[in-house]
Amino acid sequence: MNNLSHLQDIPPKAARFCLSVQEFLEGELGLSLRGTHILTAFSGGVDSTTLLLLFKLLSSRLGCTVSAAHLDHALREESAAEAEHAAKICARLGISFFSTRIDVGAFASERGMGLEEAARTVRYAFLEEQRQRCNADYIALGHNLNDLAEDSLMRLSRGTGWPQLAGMQAFNPERALLRPMLMCSREDIEAFATGLDVKWVEDPSNADTRYTRNRMRHELLPLFMRENPGFLNTVATRWRLAQKDATFWDAQLAKLIASAEQDTEGAYTLSAPKLRMQHTAMRLRLFKILLERLGPGQVRADSLFRLEETFQRGEGGKTLQFPGDKRVVLSSRSITFLPKKK
Amino acid sequence: MNNLSHLQDIPPKAARFCLSVQEFLEGELGLSLRGTHILTAFSGGVDSTTLLLLFKLLSSRLGCTVSAAHLDHALREESAAEAEHAAKICARLGISFFSTRIDVGAFASERGMGLEEAARTVRYAFLEEQRQRCNADYIALGHNLNDLAEDSLMRLSRGTGWPQLAGMQAFNPERALLRPMLMCSREDIEAFATGLDVKWVEDPSNADTRYTRNRMRHELLPLFMRENPGFLNTVATRWRLAQKDATFWDAQLAKLIASAEQDTEGAYTLSAPKLRMQHTAMRLRLFKILLERLGPGQVRADSLFRLEETFQRGEGGKTLQFPGDKRVVLSSRSITFLPKKK
Repeated sequence: MNNLSHLQDIPPKAARFCLSVQEFLEGELGLSLRGTHILTAFSGGVDSTTLLLLFKLLSSRLGCTVSAAHLDHALREESAAEAEHAAKICARLGISFFSTRIDVGAFASERGMGLEEAARTVRYAFLEEQRQRCNADYIALGHNLNDLAEDSLMRLSRGTGWPQLAGMQAFNPERALLRPMLMCSREDIEAFATGLDVKWVEDPSNADTRYTRNRMRHELLPLFMRENPGFLNTVATRWRLAQKDATFWDAQLAKLIASAEQDTEGAYTLSAPKLRMQHTAMRLRLFKILLERLGPGQVRADSLFRLEETFQRGEGGKTLQFPGDKRVVLSSRSITFLPKKK
Repeated sequence: MNNLSHLQDIPPKAARFCLSVQEFLEGELGLSLRGTHILTAFSGGVDSTTLLLLFKLLSSRLGCTVSAAHLDHALREESAAEAEHAAKICARLGISFFSTRIDVGAFASERGMGLEEAARTVRYAFLEEQRQRCNADYIALGHNLNDLAEDSLMRLSRGTGWPQLAGMQAFNPERALLRPMLMCSREDIEAFATGLDVKWVEDPSNADTRYTRNRMRHELLPLFMRENPGFLNTVATRWRLAQKDATFWDAQLAKLIASAEQDTEGAYTLSAPKLRMQHTAMRLRLFKILLERLGPGQVRADSLFRLEETFQRGEGGKTLQFPGDKRVVLSSRSITFLPKKK
């Protein structure tokens, strides 16, 4: 791992890999990173090491500056040594590095949370805190196409609707998250890292099938790959189709939401006759978004269907309850979404 | 299995099961079978035996007449005896019965087809032939919620887009197919049949994991059920959401297709400026439907994306080739979908 500042310094195949990521960011996501500061979540594994190298190699072309943040989850004996390894890599690449140690095991048992969920909660909070501290624009994450496949299988198992079913976002402006390698397979990432003679850390917990994510990786995904060796390509294509559908529905729903009146308590009221002119597919999504906006409490699809049926029957004076103490009041003239009483 | 003509004759739980199927047909699908003749595909297995009983018990409420058709695939020694068993059941229920024997193995090797595909091809051709012969309105199939789950997993593996991803149709007017038990789990169907002391035939090939369908049933589906014991409910809910989306897109696309000019060769021409006002999500689906209408040759999603990019660049005088010798000619003013030259 020497002299990794320019695409000319690396083999053509590795350079093409870098350019495919630039094309994804700028061409497909339509995102310019010029003048931005990217904080990279850097575990020391192959994905985040590759991501860091990519930014190092592309930063002049993308016009951004890069820093790295490492969280020592304190879950394994080697974790302190791994944090040192991560620091050394950043020093050699000339990338500013920040690291901290949080006892995730203790956090999990204090809150009565599963280890997987606790690690995710602590990690994202740390990254966001560090992003604000160093005034970065985005947090870059090393998620790849295999992660996307695993994520979409988890969503399938949980019952997620479309288009969210196709998997995690590549760019989430609200949470300032960016996933530049979402269309790159793990195989291509490992080939890139190996080709540049990069050393990385293997997290042994990746093999632990007590974690949902790992069961997707080691049990479900291989079965789909056996049915269709091009399965990862179908995941990528389906994700791309879902992004188009997401922008379509977002635009349609934005118009409807804009037509809603919001009172000082945060309740939304829409005209029932106007809403009646919309298609059921649109109303079901609108109902879901408005209920989500009212605060915590997840709404299930069958409750949305029940709300839609009540709305279609057009009976006045009905009130339906939703999780999180939210209510929907229907009359023949209007439909009102009310948050939990304060 | 005695005296099965009225819902009053059977236990309340079994009667509720019947009524849930009636509610699905009339309430959810909005389908009236009054005055129709339903040809039931009757293998003698638990699904189709239950379906036949359901129609027997519901026929006066639904207002339809029922007959049964059995295909002896000649793939197993017992198949002739099974055909006889099927005939006996229909005789006892007073349902008119037709059966024929086709050597599916020979058909498969003559055509160089897989046994699974050959059986399906022969079976559907037989059913349609028999439907026309007895002047029936619809062919009723015994597919259930587990079949739907397996089907949607197969579609996931193959890369099907939304809303087709959610699985097979409950009602296909073009092919005159009806699947009344699509929302009933295999567990509920077996409980119904057992409760009425019905004997059914187990097809040993259902255990053969050389067939894709059976690998879904015995390997993939159990893993999803382990992740989420309510997985079948999520399949049903996702299917219901998909049906709403399907009617939404069908209505939108019907308007666009109606605006296309079709010439005597079967080519479709649309105004490019008008099409440009549509969302990408709409255009991708329109392109797919028009290409499918031009004849055989499956179009892949990445080719649709390529067509969309070419359209968006707005370059005149471009021609793109598609499988089945179909072509799309783009100019700045129009886009034309051309079938294979005769």
